[in-house]
Amino acid sequence: MHMTPDEFRTYGKQVVDWIADYRGGIENHPVRAKVRPGEIRAGLPAHPPDRGEPFDRLLADLDERILPGVTHWQHPDFFAYFPANATGPSILGDLLSSGLGVQGMVWATSPACTELETVVVDWLAELLGLPPGFRTDGPGGGVIQDSASSAALVAVLAALHRVSGGTVGDEGISRRYTIYVTSETHSALEKAGRITGIGARNVRVVDVDPSTLAMDPAHLAALLEADTAAGAVPALVCATIGTTSTTAIDPVAAIGEVCQAHEVWLHVDAAYAGVAAVCPELRWINEGVAEYVDSYATNPHKWLLTNHDCTVLWVTDRAPLIGALSILPEFLRNPATESGAVIDYRDWQIPLGRRFRALKLWAVLRWYGAEGLRAHIRSGIELAGGFAALVAADDRFELHEPRHFGLVCFRPKWTDERIMALLERLNESGELYLSHTRVHGRVTLRFAVGSTSTTAQHVRDAWAAITAAVAQAGPR
Amino acid sequence: MHMTPDEFRTYGKQVVDWIADYRGGIENHPVRAKVRPGEIRAGLPAHPPDRGEPFDRLLADLDERILPGVTHWQHPDFFAYFPANATGPSILGDLLSSGLGVQGMVWATSPACTELETVVVDWLAELLGLPPGFRTDGPGGGVIQDSASSAALVAVLAALHRVSGGTVGDEGISRRYTIYVTSETHSALEKAGRITGIGARNVRVVDVDPSTLAMDPAHLAALLEADTAAGAVPALVCATIGTTSTTAIDPVAAIGEVCQAHEVWLHVDAAYAGVAAVCPELRWINEGVAEYVDSYATNPHKWLLTNHDCTVLWVTDRAPLIGALSILPEFLRNPATESGAVIDYRDWQIPLGRRFRALKLWAVLRWYGAEGLRAHIRSGIELAGGFAALVAADDRFELHEPRHFGLVCFRPKWTDERIMALLERLNESGELYLSHTRVHGRVTLRFAVGSTSTTAQHVRDAWAAITAAVAQAGPR
Repeated sequence: MHMTPDEFRTYGKQVVDWIADYRGGIENHPVRAKVRPGEIRAGLPAHPPDRGEPFDRLLADLDERILPGVTHWQHPDFFAYFPANATGPSILGDLLSSGLGVQGMVWATSPACTELETVVVDWLAELLGLPPGFRTDGPGGGVIQDSASSAALVAVLAALHRVSGGTVGDEGISRRYTIYVTSETHSALEKAGRITGIGARNVRVVDVDPSTLAMDPAHLAALLEADTAAGAVPALVCATIGTTSTTAIDPVAAIGEVCQAHEVWLHVDAAYAGVAAVCPELRWINEGVAEYVDSYATNPHKWLLTNHDCTVLWVTDRAPLIGALSILPEFLRNPATESGAVIDYRDWQIPLGRRFRALKLWAVLRWYGAEGLRAHIRSGIELAGGFAALVAADDRFELHEPRHFGLVCFRPKWTDERIMALLERLNESGELYLSHTRVHGRVTLRFAVGSTSTTAQHVRDAWAAITAAVAQAGPR
Repeated sequence: MHMTPDEFRTYGKQVVDWIADYRGGIENHPVRAKVRPGEIRAGLPAHPPDRGEPFDRLLADLDERILPGVTHWQHPDFFAYFPANATGPSILGDLLSSGLGVQGMVWATSPACTELETVVVDWLAELLGLPPGFRTDGPGGGVIQDSASSAALVAVLAALHRVSGGTVGDEGISRRYTIYVTSETHSALEKAGRITGIGARNVRVVDVDPSTLAMDPAHLAALLEADTAAGAVPALVCATIGTTSTTAIDPVAAIGEVCQAHEVWLHVDAAYAGVAAVCPELRWINEGVAEYVDSYATNPHKWLLTNHDCTVLWVTDRAPLIGALSILPEFLRNPATESGAVIDYRDWQIPLGRRFRALKLWAVLRWYGAEGLRAHIRSGIELAGGFAALVAADDRFELHEPRHFGLVCFRPKWTDERIMALLERLNESGELYLSHTRVHGRVTLRFAVGSTSTTAQHVRDAWAAITAAVAQAGPR
C-alpha cells in the first residue's frame, strides 16, 4: 500500500527526468497558459478514486490535463511580475527537506533544522553586507518566513509589542496605533494593518517624490507629528528598497532619522531588491540600514535562485518579536527551551509547524558561492539595461526613470486603453509574458528580467515582438 | 554556473537514492538526535563559500554534519507529538511543484494551480463525508493553508469581518471582541487572539467536562450571555475534534446550537483527527458539522500521508473570508479576476505568494485511493488500541480514557517528577520517542501511533522498553 523505498527510487527518478525534460524543453510551451476559467477543472474527475492508481498515471495526467493550464514562471520569456527562480540546487535542497520530513517548530523537535537555519541566515546577512546587529550571536537574528507579507506582519506585531509594552497582545488594541507607508509600498502592509486590528484607515500614506517615487521624509515627519498630537501611537514605518511597481528606493537613512526622533520601529521591505546587495557595487541600496533599521526582509525565492518559499527576515532585537508571538503550551515544554540556550523559531512566525527550509538556501549558497550569486544578479541587471537602451532609443516609447535592478518600466506614448489592449495581445501570443502597473495613474508596462534561462537573444526577441505589435497597431 | 538539466538528472537521482537509502535504513539512527545546543552549528563553517561547490559535497555534509542533529520524524519508533507522514507520493508531488516553480497567488498567474486545488479540496471534503456546503460550487469552498494555526487565524479574521460588518479591517478594533476556547484548545487560538488585536484576555476559557475534557456547552452559553451583557461582541467559538493533548472531542452539535442562538462563528479545529473521517465508521466525530459550522480545518500533513505543509480549511461562506483578506493592487489586476469567474486564493490566506501545493495532495489521494487512506487510519487506530490494551492490563499504569484515534495517554502511578525523569531517560536512549502533556495538572505520557513504517512489533518493543525502564526505576 505504501510506496516502498524501491518504488520511490523508480518513480523518483521518473519525476527527476520529467523535471529535467520539462526545463530543457520549456520553450516549447506558450509562456502564459491559454485556458479559460474552469477549463482545467472540467478536465479532471469530479470524484476522488476509490482504489489507488500507479504513479505513472499521475505523470501522464500532469502532461495532458495540468500543463495546458500552467503559466511557465521558469520560461526564459517570462518577464511579468518578478522572477521566481526555482533552480536545481534549491529544488534538490527542498526535496531533501521533504525526504527527511522533520518538524522544526522548536529546537528540540529536530535541532539541526534550527541550527542550520541560524547558520544560513547569518551567511546570507554576511553575503549581503548587512550589519552585524542582524547576526544571531547578538540580541538580533534572522529567520526564514514563507513570504515578505508574513515578514511584514510579524514586524508589525513586534513593533506593536514594543510600543505598547506588551499590552496589545495581552489586552488587545485599545487605542489608535498607526503605521506609515507610501502609495508604492506593497499591499502586504495594508493587509498587516487589517489583520492586526490597527485598521486600514490607520495605515497612513506618506507622500512620495514625484520623480523618484521614493518616500518623502519631511512629510513622514509631519504626519508623525500630527498623528502623535492627535493622540495616535505611531508603531511602525515601512521603507521599501525596490518597490513592487517600479523598484523605487526609499531613503532609508533620512527616514531612519525621523523614526529615531519619534522612537518608531523601522521595517525595510526589500523583498525583491535586497538580494542584489550580494554585489558590493550595489550595497549603497542599504545605506542607513545599519544605523536605523529594526527589521529587514528580502526574498531569496524571487531573484536569489531559491524556490518558493524562502523569505529571510532579520531583526536587531528578537525580544519584542518573541514577546509578541511566544506561547508555550505544556506539550511543547522541553529542557532545551527552558534552559534558554536554544532558538525556537515557532516564536518568530505565525504558524507553529515548519519545514526544514534551511536546506534549500544552504544548497543554493554552496552550489553558487558568492561569485555565482553575484554573476546571476549582474546578468539580470545587464540584460535589463540592454532592454532599457532599446526602449530609450525608440521615440514611440517613454522609459520610466530612475531605473534600478532587473526591471524596466516603459510605455508606448498611447492611451491607457490602447496599452492594456497591447499587453493582452502580447501575452495572448504565448511568446512572452509582461505585466503592468500604474505610475502617476498611467498604465505602464513592466519588463522584469531575472530567470536563469533568459539570454540577450530572448530580450532582443521580446523587444522585436513588442515593437512589431506596436507597429501593427499603427499610429493614432 | 546554473545547474543544467543534465546535471539536475544526475544529482536529482543521487538525492532520490539518498532519500530511499535514508528511509530504508532509518532504524539505524537513534529516533531523537543526541546533540547538545550549538553542536551542529559549531560543526558548520562560520562563513559562506566564495566559490560554488559540487553538489556531492553537500550530500556528504548532510550525512556527516546534519544527520546527527536530526530527530527522525519518519522513524517507526517515533511516537511523540503527532505523526507527520511524509510519504513517497507526497514527496514526489511536492517535487513536481518545486520543478514547475509556478506562483499561484491569483488564478491568472497559473490557472491550473488554482483549479487543481479546488478539485482536490472538494475531493477531500467528499472523502471525509463533510457537508456539501463546504464544496466550492456553492458560496463556500476549501483552500490549502500552511498550518492549522494559520487556518484558525484567518477564521478569526473572517469572523471579525462578519460580526463587525467589515469595520474591523477598515477602522481597526475599537470595541471588545471575544473568542471562546477551552483549556484543551490549541494555543494557536490564543496566538490568533494576540495577532488580531483581540487580546489574550478576551480569549475566554470555557469549562470542560472533567472526565471527557470536552467543552461544556452550558458554560459556553453562560459566558456568551455574560460577555454580551457586559458589552463585549463574541466573534468566534473554536470547537476541537481531537485536541492536541489527549484527542478529546468537543460536542459540536450542542456547541453549534449555542453559537446559532448567539449568532457567533463556529470554527472547528480538527487538525489531527479530522482526516480520520475517511473511514465511514468514524464519521460520527463530525456530528453537528453540517448544521452549525462556519469553518473547519484538518491537516493532511499530520496523519493523512502528505508531507508538510498541507492544512485544508473549508468555509461555508467565502465572502467574509475574502472580505477580510482581499486587497487588489494594480500590479495584480487582470481580466479573469475582474470577471469574478475565478478564485484568487491569495485572498483566502495571509501571504500573497503560494506554491502549487495541490500537486502533493493530488498525488496522495490518487496513489492511495479512498481504500488506501482508510487502511492507513485503521492501522494506526488498531496499533494504538493494542498498546492501550497493554497499558490497561498493567496495574502499575493508569490509562487516560476516553481514548480515540491513534493516541494513547497514560502514566505510571508515580509523581510528576519521576515520570518526567523516566520520559527523558527513554527519549535519551534513542530507541523510541514519546512526548508528554498534563491532564488535570498531572504529567501524562503521550504515545502517538501513525507513522507509515510502524508495525505491531515496534509497538510491542516500545512497551517492553517502557516497562523495563519502569521496572528498573523500581517501586517507591
